[in-house]
Amino acid sequence: MQILDGKVVAESINKENEERIKRKKTKPNIAILGIKGDEASNTYIKRIEKNCQKFGIGFNLFLAETEEQFKANFEKIKDDEKITGIMFQQPLPKELLELVDEIPPIKDIEGVSSYNMGRLFLGKERAIIPCTSKAVIEVLDYYNIDLTGKKVVVVGRSNIVGKPLIPQLLQKNATVTICHSKTKNLKEETRNADVVIMAIGKARFLKKEDIKDGAILIDVGINFEDGKIVGDIDFEDIKEKASMCTPVPGGIGTITNAVLIRNIIESSEKF
Amino acid sequence: MQILDGKVVAESINKENEERIKRKKTKPNIAILGIKGDEASNTYIKRIEKNCQKFGIGFNLFLAETEEQFKANFEKIKDDEKITGIMFQQPLPKELLELVDEIPPIKDIEGVSSYNMGRLFLGKERAIIPCTSKAVIEVLDYYNIDLTGKKVVVVGRSNIVGKPLIPQLLQKNATVTICHSKTKNLKEETRNADVVIMAIGKARFLKKEDIKDGAILIDVGINFEDGKIVGDIDFEDIKEKASMCTPVPGGIGTITNAVLIRNIIESSEKF
Repeated sequence: MQILDGKVVAESINKENEERIKRKKTKPNIAILGIKGDEASNTYIKRIEKNCQKFGIGFNLFLAETEEQFKANFEKIKDDEKITGIMFQQPLPKELLELVDEIPPIKDIEGVSSYNMGRLFLGKERAIIPCTSKAVIEVLDYYNIDLTGKKVVVVGRSNIVGKPLIPQLLQKNATVTICHSKTKNLKEETRNADVVIMAIGKARFLKKEDIKDGAILIDVGINFEDGKIVGDIDFEDIKEKASMCTPVPGGIGTITNAVLIRNIIESSEKF
Repeated sequence: MQILDGKVVAESINKENEERIKRKKTKPNIAILGIKGDEASNTYIKRIEKNCQKFGIGFNLFLAETEEQFKANFEKIKDDEKITGIMFQQPLPKELLELVDEIPPIKDIEGVSSYNMGRLFLGKERAIIPCTSKAVIEVLDYYNIDLTGKKVVVVGRSNIVGKPLIPQLLQKNATVTICHSKTKNLKEETRNADVVIMAIGKARFLKKEDIKDGAILIDVGINFEDGKIVGDIDFEDIKEKASMCTPVPGGIGTITNAVLIRNIIESSEKF
């Protein structure tokens, strides 16, 4: 089985990122808005901060104590010309999440506003695409995997992975099936697929008996098991049967970081 | 086989439409913008006009001679408070089609702007939903067809039918597969489906050998054959094998008209 190496794909994107940012007179400068919270999201924020520093991207963190303060922070920065990109750090209460649609499209570096999602969905140019879903497409492109007519099964229907993958896979002429927790005979669906994209957050869920010979597997899952990070695919189990698979760690997550940097660089040029 | 009667569903929606419009102090008042063109679209416009008259909805038609004139018409009406809804009459050149995103969301009665599509896709409240896709959901709801866990195959990936159906079917917990012209083994996909939704515009394409026993069939196709309107499903051929099917005419098209009227009434209340 060929390992689809996320590090190689990320390096290739980051090389381009470096060149593009060198050419920019004004460096991007992003703001992350959140509410003081759990450790997991702090780790994530720290990784973004480190990445931004590496690329000379300005990084501003606004962690609010209250919802009111979050709103005030948002009001202050959303039309600030010095801020070129805005991210909301999840989890957030529903009311605050709705504010995402007030992020100016040009600053929506995660592509999570209704406007950007609509553009992606409708196949319009200049859509900013949610990073993780785009990372899946990047690995397929890097390894020249042609999806035309192929049966692609996406397991997971989230707004940041499963759903935004649909228009991107259709664009590549794949026949796309979306499965989720209510799907009957999930394993029958995955067994019939040429390509399976797993994004359900269940550790080592997909086994060799759930795939067909030579299947191409993409693992979006990030799960913690006995202090180790594992994906939604049982990598050891499938490796004799699948033809290609992304590892976890070192797969989609690694590419996602590089795609976010590209989104940060590109968003301000898009509109 | 049970015929899923579009007329009955449309009547039920229109009854509600009548009541809602009676309660409104200011009647809706729509504008259709187009370029002088072919007969087919004229027929469509006349039907909408007749329908608007029936419901006491103001109807204004702006057919331009040139693209410049189209743009001027649009500039004139888009922020006019007396116009509560705006529709673009297709076909239009790409440059004019892009203007759809400048229709204020509240006036986008067809739900075709990026913003509205994004809201639908993301499962947000208050999305205005493209009429034909919504008509499919209406007939399923009217006949209490539960889609939970069911395998639904949509044939056709257009921006106004196939794609907007995806989030609506996922919302109903269906396992959704999107097929299209590049799909290999299309008939194998339809044969495995509990529900098939046909929207490809090929006269009497789906035959009894392409479906499983007891399948539920929804026909979105409108094709002209020997001066007669026929759907994408060979209705005569499948009627001994399917359990339910919408006819053409008298199916989805009829419901679509009623849904458009509802969108016209609702849009101005949505935001």
